Amino acid sequence: MNFVEERIAKDGVIKSGNVLKVDSFLNHQMDVDFIDRIGREFYKGFSCKPINKILTIEASGIAIAYAAARHFNVPVVFAKKSRSVNISGDTYVSEVESFTHKKKNMVVVSKRFLNETDHILIVDDFLANGCALQGLCSIADSAHAHVEGIGIVIEKGFQIGGQVIRNLGYDLQSLSIVEAMDESTGEIVFRNQK
Amino acid sequence: MNFVEERIAKDGVIKSGNVLKVDSFLNHQMDVDFIDRIGREFYKGFSCKPINKILTIEASGIAIAYAAARHFNVPVVFAKKSRSVNISGDTYVSEVESFTHKKKNMVVVSKRFLNETDHILIVDDFLANGCALQGLCSIADSAHAHVEGIGIVIEKGFQIGGQVIRNLGYDLQSLSIVEAMDESTGEIVFRNQK
Repeated sequence: MNFVEERIAKDGVIKSGNVLKVDSFLNHQMDVDFIDRIGREFYKGFSCKPINKILTIEASGIAIAYAAARHFNVPVVFAKKSRSVNISGDTYVSEVESFTHKKKNMVVVSKRFLNETDHILIVDDFLANGCALQGLCSIADSAHAHVEGIGIVIEKGFQIGGQVIRNLGYDLQSLSIVEAMDESTGEIVFRNQK
Repeated sequence: MNFVEERIAKDGVIKSGNVLKVDSFLNHQMDVDFIDRIGREFYKGFSCKPINKILTIEASGIAIAYAAARHFNVPVVFAKKSRSVNISGDTYVSEVESFTHKKKNMVVVSKRFLNETDHILIVDDFLANGCALQGLCSIADSAHAHVEGIGIVIEKGFQIGGQVIRNLGYDLQSLSIVEAMDESTGEIVFRNQK
């Protein structure tokens, strides 16, 4: 197991409805050394690409994006979620549905911060059905920005998102892929990516 | 002017309704070196305190908290905003009203991540009417955690928040205090804190 899988196995909690809680170290309380290491790992995976910006979505993507951006020495742009948007001409907007919260959000990025000269790395904490990620990719497309890669901390391999994103041709690297989880035993099986 | 005031003067944009936009470097696109420096500054200001946790609120507080936490070598907890909360027994909840968005949010922190042994530094990007901050202080009180200090990047000195928080006895340090801004001229006047 790599350090992400080890930490999930140690501190992740499985809840009903295929929910994996990692809020003690990743997305509510945050272990800064752990997230720093995630940032380094994304840099190792994508440093061969001409990345000039990291794109993520609020809120739990922000620290991960920040950690990665320190290694790439580039700015972060985080997309904002909004229930309703006064769609003015100065924003890119995409509608996404959250798996966890079962609600739709508009995802918004100002046109000032993304354009055709950008070569971006998209990062996020989770990839499940892939809707949030497709929203970010759609915004990047609208901006004619180049998506050089996608870095995910935890992919749920038993949901469709990873397959959809890979089939679309994106260079998706997930630091861990959960193949199965058992709420009753607490057991988590990871995909062997070697 | 210090580095925060200089950056605001250079890249801040004044909008009607006393809105100061700093989204090109602080809370939509993020300049990672600038935010690192903010983290160092908070460490300088509060390193004499026995801080074991940084508390902030999603979304724009997260990167600042993360940058500070790297210097203190402690975890971050970010409070979550929710329009409606299933108030279960395992969360601290406080209701706050956003100045910018004119709407009420519940602010929520899991009881697992804040308790009476914690000595916390609260950080956020803006302090205006102080409602978000009072929400965080209220949550810290509910947890019987000790608020050792509060670090703010931009305080709007012409609004009531800073005075309220200082009158409550908190050690509030703002890296910049805007005394006045003029939308027509673009001029920003900072309080002399020397």
